Amino acid sequence: MKFTVNREKLQKALQKVGSIITARSFSMMPILGNVLMEAKEDGKLVLTTTDLEVRISTAIEAQVEEAGRSTAPARKLASLVACLDGAEVKFDIDGDDHIKISCSTGRYKLLGLSAADFPENSDFTSVRELKFKSCDLKRMIGAIAYSVSVDDSRKVLTGVMLSCRESMVTLVATDGKRMAMQEKAPEAMEGGDGDTIIPLKAINEVKRMLEGDGIVSLKIGEKQCAFSTSEFELATKLIEGQYPNYRQVVPASFKENIELPVGTLLSKLETVSLLLSESSSFVILRFEDNKLILQAASSEVGEGNDYIEIAYSGEPFDISLNPVFLADPLRNTDMEKISFKVNDPINPVAMETTDGFLYVIMPIRKR
Amino acid sequence: MKFTVNREKLQKALQKVGSIITARSFSMMPILGNVLMEAKEDGKLVLTTTDLEVRISTAIEAQVEEAGRSTAPARKLASLVACLDGAEVKFDIDGDDHIKISCSTGRYKLLGLSAADFPENSDFTSVRELKFKSCDLKRMIGAIAYSVSVDDSRKVLTGVMLSCRESMVTLVATDGKRMAMQEKAPEAMEGGDGDTIIPLKAINEVKRMLEGDGIVSLKIGEKQCAFSTSEFELATKLIEGQYPNYRQVVPASFKENIELPVGTLLSKLETVSLLLSESSSFVILRFEDNKLILQAASSEVGEGNDYIEIAYSGEPFDISLNPVFLADPLRNTDMEKISFKVNDPINPVAMETTDGFLYVIMPIRKR
Repeated sequence: MKFTVNREKLQKALQKVGSIITARSFSMMPILGNVLMEAKEDGKLVLTTTDLEVRISTAIEAQVEEAGRSTAPARKLASLVACLDGAEVKFDIDGDDHIKISCSTGRYKLLGLSAADFPENSDFTSVRELKFKSCDLKRMIGAIAYSVSVDDSRKVLTGVMLSCRESMVTLVATDGKRMAMQEKAPEAMEGGDGDTIIPLKAINEVKRMLEGDGIVSLKIGEKQCAFSTSEFELATKLIEGQYPNYRQVVPASFKENIELPVGTLLSKLETVSLLLSESSSFVILRFEDNKLILQAASSEVGEGNDYIEIAYSGEPFDISLNPVFLADPLRNTDMEKISFKVNDPINPVAMETTDGFLYVIMPIRKR
Repeated sequence: MKFTVNREKLQKALQKVGSIITARSFSMMPILGNVLMEAKEDGKLVLTTTDLEVRISTAIEAQVEEAGRSTAPARKLASLVACLDGAEVKFDIDGDDHIKISCSTGRYKLLGLSAADFPENSDFTSVRELKFKSCDLKRMIGAIAYSVSVDDSRKVLTGVMLSCRESMVTLVATDGKRMAMQEKAPEAMEGGDGDTIIPLKAINEVKRMLEGDGIVSLKIGEKQCAFSTSEFELATKLIEGQYPNYRQVVPASFKENIELPVGTLLSKLETVSLLLSESSSFVILRFEDNKLILQAASSEVGEGNDYIEIAYSGEPFDISLNPVFLADPLRNTDMEKISFKVNDPINPVAMETTDGFLYVIMPIRKR
């Protein structure tokens, strides 16, 4: 197996596929620390990594002198390629997976493992197919992914729910304490309604790799799904089980709907939150005569108080919220305004933007 | 106590004094997590931190309405000041060390501790005084500090030795396996010859804070020394004990003196070193007909081989070195050339630059 590739393109491709490799997975199964390299006769080098749940592939142009398959230790290869000087890197791999690499005046040998031991790609039958603009899907994921549960005890909550209903797609994430959803019509949709739970790790990798305004297509099967663009393909197992009925947590109506400036609210919220401690972690929002006052206090650290000018002329009221839950959607939107929707200080509060985003949190009752 | 200061200047000053505060020290003694604030009638705010070994002070201009002393939790104050928006920050501190801070529309309260509990500054009698350009001293420290021992078992080696001999200053660092020294004539020197061992933490803080080409003066006492510039003052306890005779490890003469290019050598050394593993951590330098060949190999990872063109026409020879010990002086010099001085593959090797830097390491005998 012999091929020559552009050093910078190889470096970027290795960065793309390398991030799913964790020390934990490959200490148990060394081949999972390796990247599968397939040099094809049509002038492509395909690089693939997997952690047995998620599988990422990307292809770059190559001058292939002798086609073949082998695997190289992914991190070592990435570090080496990043250090090399020279525009072209030449690979010459023998039947024992000894990988000879030459670049400029440097000659290197890495010890690979047989491609025969690399986990095989399992094909699946697609029942539904969606197409998005890459930048749209990246934004949709970013708007909700922070609400996914990190607690393994309810497996279905550790993924993002992708729901297709009447040519509309909704991404939903909840950890049981707050719920975020983002709705958008995809560029194309085939295969009808249905729900799919995609593991957070796969969703985060997709978000990381998406760029530009090209098309990303998503093929969904019974137990797997696969995202693909001109730059990469990512396949993942799905999470099985019944996702909770997220629509029922959204109150049917709200008494107040107050428009708030995202940037100013976030920066003042972060500042007053510095005065909190572990034992006291809520901020009080006080709405009164065209002002939103933010207050935070803890007996260990001190007190913070600031305000922003808003359009509100109703009855003054207070509401106490977890500052992290309040800040997360502000940090993850690119909208300038957000609607703060509230009935009273004890029932769920919603935050909504005009681009299809909706977020629900519970106030904190203690004062 | 009431004063108003420029927000950005306060932020920079807090960064300057804040870095010696470690969670370990202030969990044992809460006042060590606080910054002493002294508002003086002459329009200065002096900020001071200490870990009982090192004490750092800096002063900024302040509009002092009511002079006084108090202490504030250093990290909280620094985070808060960094977040505030507004050009001016106003402090109003009562007798219970409740610190009221206002900036733009924000009002904050931090809980301080009494200045009476803050460790006092212990004056000392200076026996020797040196002056350097700040940039010179910063460079001198950088050239040798990586060789200081991190092993507490020989206390004297955990500091930098500053030796004054006949109007020349030498900084020395050794961990017992390699020795680095940097010689330079200071701008001024009073008090005659003598040796002083300065703890690495203090030296690193001085290096971090030094900038520009102003003058830094160093006053040395029996058990303490103090660095001061127009920007800060840093006082530290000295390490007591007898520093080893470092001059005797420098061979009297060398058979070969080969000039090597610093940047190219470092980058090729780092690249071939990627092929090493924990069980095999030496590189072989092979000098032959106008070439320096770098080789590294390990049974776990693979092999690396590269070369640089140099001026060398003597007998070919090999020498094995620890790649970290070889790379450290290359990383920490701003000279383009370094002289590699060698007698044979088993006796000490020296590296020297024309700006007064000398470094000695032992070759590795195993091959």
